[in-house]
Amino acid sequence: MNFEFQNPTRILFGAGVLARLGEAAGEYGKKALLVTGGGSVKRGGVFDRAVESLKAAGVSYVECTGIEPNPRISSVVRGADIARKEGCDMVIALGGGSVMDASKVIAAAALYDGDPWDMIMHGQEHVHVPTQALPVITVPTLAATGSEANCGAVITNEKTTVKSFVMAPALYPKVAVVDPELTVSVPVDQTAYGVCDLITHVTEAYFNGSGTTPLQDRFAEGVILTALEWGPKAVADGNDLEARTQIQWAALVALVGWVNVGTNGAYPVHMMEHTVSAYHDITHAAGLSIINPAWMRFAAKAEPAKFVQFAERVFGLKARSADDLDCALQGIDLFETFLRSIGCPTRFSELGIGDELFETYAKDTVAIMNDGNGRLPARPPMSIDDMVSVFKAAL
Amino acid sequence: MNFEFQNPTRILFGAGVLARLGEAAGEYGKKALLVTGGGSVKRGGVFDRAVESLKAAGVSYVECTGIEPNPRISSVVRGADIARKEGCDMVIALGGGSVMDASKVIAAAALYDGDPWDMIMHGQEHVHVPTQALPVITVPTLAATGSEANCGAVITNEKTTVKSFVMAPALYPKVAVVDPELTVSVPVDQTAYGVCDLITHVTEAYFNGSGTTPLQDRFAEGVILTALEWGPKAVADGNDLEARTQIQWAALVALVGWVNVGTNGAYPVHMMEHTVSAYHDITHAAGLSIINPAWMRFAAKAEPAKFVQFAERVFGLKARSADDLDCALQGIDLFETFLRSIGCPTRFSELGIGDELFETYAKDTVAIMNDGNGRLPARPPMSIDDMVSVFKAAL
Repeated sequence: MNFEFQNPTRILFGAGVLARLGEAAGEYGKKALLVTGGGSVKRGGVFDRAVESLKAAGVSYVECTGIEPNPRISSVVRGADIARKEGCDMVIALGGGSVMDASKVIAAAALYDGDPWDMIMHGQEHVHVPTQALPVITVPTLAATGSEANCGAVITNEKTTVKSFVMAPALYPKVAVVDPELTVSVPVDQTAYGVCDLITHVTEAYFNGSGTTPLQDRFAEGVILTALEWGPKAVADGNDLEARTQIQWAALVALVGWVNVGTNGAYPVHMMEHTVSAYHDITHAAGLSIINPAWMRFAAKAEPAKFVQFAERVFGLKARSADDLDCALQGIDLFETFLRSIGCPTRFSELGIGDELFETYAKDTVAIMNDGNGRLPARPPMSIDDMVSVFKAAL
Repeated sequence: MNFEFQNPTRILFGAGVLARLGEAAGEYGKKALLVTGGGSVKRGGVFDRAVESLKAAGVSYVECTGIEPNPRISSVVRGADIARKEGCDMVIALGGGSVMDASKVIAAAALYDGDPWDMIMHGQEHVHVPTQALPVITVPTLAATGSEANCGAVITNEKTTVKSFVMAPALYPKVAVVDPELTVSVPVDQTAYGVCDLITHVTEAYFNGSGTTPLQDRFAEGVILTALEWGPKAVADGNDLEARTQIQWAALVALVGWVNVGTNGAYPVHMMEHTVSAYHDITHAAGLSIINPAWMRFAAKAEPAKFVQFAERVFGLKARSADDLDCALQGIDLFETFLRSIGCPTRFSELGIGDELFETYAKDTVAIMNDGNGRLPARPPMSIDDMVSVFKAAL
């Protein structure tokens, strides 16, 4: 364990904190770029309440609407242009993970003269790692990505069909205004996907890390157990504010850095999913739900111990030994059963996706990131054939 | 759950990171007040290595030595005077919890014209909450208090025999340089006390919180389970760097805010212990080790459920019901047995402390903090008689 950690984001959390958006924004200037998605925030009245809070604090705004799921680099360019032309002091993201991710990159692009795509990891490099950005304030309307309080973003280049990421300290939001009331209207399927998303955020570092971080293991298990307990309640009754609150908090915590700090983990399931959703525009977490159990079975066969720990601590199974593959696989089965129980897909066929592009996804994945030997960093590292076999197992 | 959270401290963690002290300090100026305790850092060579790193970065220093265990306000005044006279740009704490706590208050006192004691909670108020401080860099040489990465400090007024605290965002260290190698030379008893200290930091919010923070419960249990696993290894073999590393990280995490955030927890065991160690100058965690099990039995009888959860999740017991007091008390017995197994005292008599001042401690405790009805905030709130009965049970 040798690492550096700093997460400076100020978190305002709790039912009703949306009313404090203006107060938070007022510390960063007088004019905001207000970024939103497809319009649900306007239909639900959240937009009006946000604007009211901004107005009361003397903060004006210009809009950047229509950020799509799997946000595109063209939307980033459009948002940054508005921010520059209008002289915005800050960027406020009012929406889900796509809106927040786009907003972070817009905030950096507004202060960068080059092509914003330079900032996104592709061709195994960052052409430009952003070192400055307009202040960003996030207001998540969905419990899922944890983007509200971390420095990462995932953007799709629709011309090249590359979906990839950027992580840079300059992208930490200044403030995350996290109000679980805003998630009460989230539909059942998106609620379930959010639960899957947050679990997958911790399973990646848990299974692909250095293996020398026992406290982080406990934290990851704590996040998963909390999601297993409260996720089904939020799915069963969207108006259960207590369940919404616990899932919102778990989603933030899953990727705020407290769980994966120092693990040196890889994110193979995310990397593979990104290439799939670059082609199919599926919800990110639906792809994760399909790929993760298949990947887990592949990885458990190579090195069962961590999956045995998962089976015992998360699902209460009893292993015969520390390397009991049967127990490991039973735990994975129970995890997949849980995903299905809340309505997440676990096979590509459920989304109408066939095997035609499996090799393309795999090749695209290592084109974004590989270990120098043509393999995707993971535990164990994955060849193109390994990835194809995982995709096939999830067909 | 309705709360605000921000911890801006930059954490450099890992064996060998002491060599980066100069690099970290160089960002905050050219001259440091270097605060140390009784001299062990000089005997062990840590001081020389720290100074070497500072010199290489062009940072000079003046010393403030001799910060005592249970640091005194007179030492704070002395340190602040040196910092002002010498025009120090920053304060570097090289030592354990006492040195770090004193350094934070020195850093604030150097920029405050009034009496530094104004900043410490007493007589049920803060005369002055610090809003500014010189930059602080912490270099813990002991895994215990977590003071390296939070905004709290505990100071004793030796004239009035009051030991109390300050918590203020201005006191967050800028950087925590956390090098587990520095703790390899910590003696067995102090190692054990550190383990007890970090556990008690999470049990307080766990047992005295709002009860609506299931993820924080999981995190608290994770910290305790990690301490139960690795603490005995660090006690058994001080040179076990892996065990030292895990305990150092657990100690930081226990009080960095990630575990108790949003719990709205009270800290009755700490409050009671402070008044005891104000009179007897015992190691803080030795006092905690004595008072905590006795307090737990008192609180479990009033409301067993959380103690049942503790018994089941931490010690693997099986309760007959959610309010099974027998199970709750068995869990507390096992916890006390653990403390004894690593060499911590669990009775006042082991430290030569009798019952003469029990009522004085209790009255002093509510003089520092009470709920407006003469009771110490806790779950349940504690009258003077309640506190005396807990002290007696620990005699």
